Amino acid sequence: MMRPLFSRCATLRAAAPQVSRIQLGSWQARQYSIKVQAASDAKPLDIDPSKLTIEKTTKPKELMKAEDLVFGQNFTDHMITIEWDITTGWKAPQIKPYQNLSLDPATCVFHYAFECFEGMKAYKDKAGKIRLFRPDKNMARFNTSAARIALPTFEPTALTELLAKFVQLESRFIPEKRGYSLYLRPTMIGTQKTLGVGAPGSALLYVIASPVGPYYPTGFKAISLEATDYAVRAWPGGVGDKKLGANYAPCIVPQREAMSRGFQQNLWLFGEEEFVTEVGTMNFFVALKNRETGQNELLTAPLDGTILNGVTRDSVLSLAREKLAPQGWKIEERKYTMKELDDAANEGRLIEAFGSGTAATVSPVRSISWKGKLVQCGLQDNEESGEITSLMKGWIEARQYGDEEHEWSMVC
Amino acid sequence: MMRPLFSRCATLRAAAPQVSRIQLGSWQARQYSIKVQAASDAKPLDIDPSKLTIEKTTKPKELMKAEDLVFGQNFTDHMITIEWDITTGWKAPQIKPYQNLSLDPATCVFHYAFECFEGMKAYKDKAGKIRLFRPDKNMARFNTSAARIALPTFEPTALTELLAKFVQLESRFIPEKRGYSLYLRPTMIGTQKTLGVGAPGSALLYVIASPVGPYYPTGFKAISLEATDYAVRAWPGGVGDKKLGANYAPCIVPQREAMSRGFQQNLWLFGEEEFVTEVGTMNFFVALKNRETGQNELLTAPLDGTILNGVTRDSVLSLAREKLAPQGWKIEERKYTMKELDDAANEGRLIEAFGSGTAATVSPVRSISWKGKLVQCGLQDNEESGEITSLMKGWIEARQYGDEEHEWSMVC
Repeated sequence: MMRPLFSRCATLRAAAPQVSRIQLGSWQARQYSIKVQAASDAKPLDIDPSKLTIEKTTKPKELMKAEDLVFGQNFTDHMITIEWDITTGWKAPQIKPYQNLSLDPATCVFHYAFECFEGMKAYKDKAGKIRLFRPDKNMARFNTSAARIALPTFEPTALTELLAKFVQLESRFIPEKRGYSLYLRPTMIGTQKTLGVGAPGSALLYVIASPVGPYYPTGFKAISLEATDYAVRAWPGGVGDKKLGANYAPCIVPQREAMSRGFQQNLWLFGEEEFVTEVGTMNFFVALKNRETGQNELLTAPLDGTILNGVTRDSVLSLAREKLAPQGWKIEERKYTMKELDDAANEGRLIEAFGSGTAATVSPVRSISWKGKLVQCGLQDNEESGEITSLMKGWIEARQYGDEEHEWSMVC
Repeated sequence: MMRPLFSRCATLRAAAPQVSRIQLGSWQARQYSIKVQAASDAKPLDIDPSKLTIEKTTKPKELMKAEDLVFGQNFTDHMITIEWDITTGWKAPQIKPYQNLSLDPATCVFHYAFECFEGMKAYKDKAGKIRLFRPDKNMARFNTSAARIALPTFEPTALTELLAKFVQLESRFIPEKRGYSLYLRPTMIGTQKTLGVGAPGSALLYVIASPVGPYYPTGFKAISLEATDYAVRAWPGGVGDKKLGANYAPCIVPQREAMSRGFQQNLWLFGEEEFVTEVGTMNFFVALKNRETGQNELLTAPLDGTILNGVTRDSVLSLAREKLAPQGWKIEERKYTMKELDDAANEGRLIEAFGSGTAATVSPVRSISWKGKLVQCGLQDNEESGEITSLMKGWIEARQYGDEEHEWSMVC
């Protein structure tokens, strides 16, 4: 008898009928697509918010001064945990005091990176109500990420319902100041404690929360980027469009390299053509004037499987189509090269550039180091943000903080 | 003041002087190379085996029957742990009872896949002495993997010395039967408990050990593979040549797909040309007769940055150069395509094929499913292994078990 290095779980799950096809993008003539089948399809028990148990802490933490908050360093009193295993499915959700995880050193999350996560925020509006911003987008992406690495999926609204209860419980940690919020980190890890390389037979979904201040407390500060052409973040047929832990650790050395030369982040290029893809932890947008037509264009790389499908990216695109297109702007998701940016800069057509992500919302970019020169991205020396970047920040925040009632904002 | 999402550690470390350049391989005309700087270069304290403390278990486990052992499911009484932090460097090594790790849910290993590992084995020879097989190779690769994701490096011989003490302590778990061994899993994880994406300021190196039986207890059993052309494991400029957790979780769905159609593992192809790269968890070799010259060739994919630098792969190549080349074989590390294999099979020139890895040593391959047909890899229906595969198994095991005294085998 052969002892399989790959676990048998893979075969068990393959029996489930529901299969969805996810396009992974194309590179040259090849089309990549992978059938991703949710592990939990075979299981009757989904996440059931009605089974939630809450154990409140007996040692509430002292609140930090709002101005001392640093991203991801301090956490609230509690956490959500939901265990899953392949025989019973999702177990009863728990909210309990924030505490360490105790895991066997053979647990598969430590060895094979069975882990994915989301980043999202809860905001307090002027009336003191707590709001989540587009949680449906995060839940959908979380499921897509989990399924791609053979972790279980779940009913998206079930976790959103739990998040709403959780942020209400942690309400005191959300400062009632504009620019402040509660960063939520839903995380899923494989917990099977064997070294065979196979689909985990058990998993843990947990959510922790960190109160955060404004990314730019004293107003925008433009960052400078270093274009990375010596390493590649993602590729067609790979997993660069999923929010997997696997996409992050390999990015640190290029990031550190950029910082050692005085740049805040690196900008990932792809292929011989040097297509612009995304910034270290953000999507990337550029506003330029078309050489032939003279039309203003807002460009970002397309979702071809190598780009993270950012919620802020999607919000920027939607808002641009809603508010800039009627003013004559062309809003485009297409491949564009570093040379196109450089040409536009040299010809005075590069209007501005910015990154987008949950942490900073939008982050203006002053310049990009590329092939030994600095490509200037349209800002005057005394400017820290372009007009579109500033407008975009205002438009998004109006919906995040509920100044503008909108379907993107969910009152908890 | 701006609050950086990226940790300041990156800047601190960039001040260290020693930098090594690692070639990441080429794709079309582009050369990728990345400066990887060991985080520990800046720190005076390396791993010091003389500081080892040993806490023996008070509850020794009962030994399992040798024939009941399954890969990576049962572990010995103890584990090695060595903590590191950026201010003090490596702390005193400990051997202590096998136990759970207690980690904050914000720990960076759970979010950003700061994790790498090694797989190696300790063997008991006829005289009852314990032997490690080429531990220098594993230690070198472990350091390369760690440095690529901004985890600390260490003096390779220091960990080897600790492993020797560890396997002596766990001697009773190593069956004195040919084919049995103690699988060792050195693992390093980032332990910083903040969510900022940056180089971890603390880490844990640990080693656990699992007694294992022969991969093929009743003799070889040839496996069949499914060529994967719908997803891509690794890319030039990526991290496919490092033993990172990040390379494993994304491979499970294609593996599961292959299993669902009756194949034991998948075979990763690359690019439009469909270059053959590696099997799910093994390197891949093929023996064929050259169409033009009639010479026998043993082929494997080159170390271009997309292939894991397997210790068994290296051993197979060395042994082939030592023992097959004098018999007229050409031993080649070069790119070759699935079509080349198919042509060779159709023309009766495909002699045999096998995978190589620590778990199975060598694993004969019967057939490969590709473009809807089965490429037969040279075995008769009643054969489970080709001649070269069988010879190779014998040659390697002779050195692993010390039947042949050789520098590859280190007596502990």
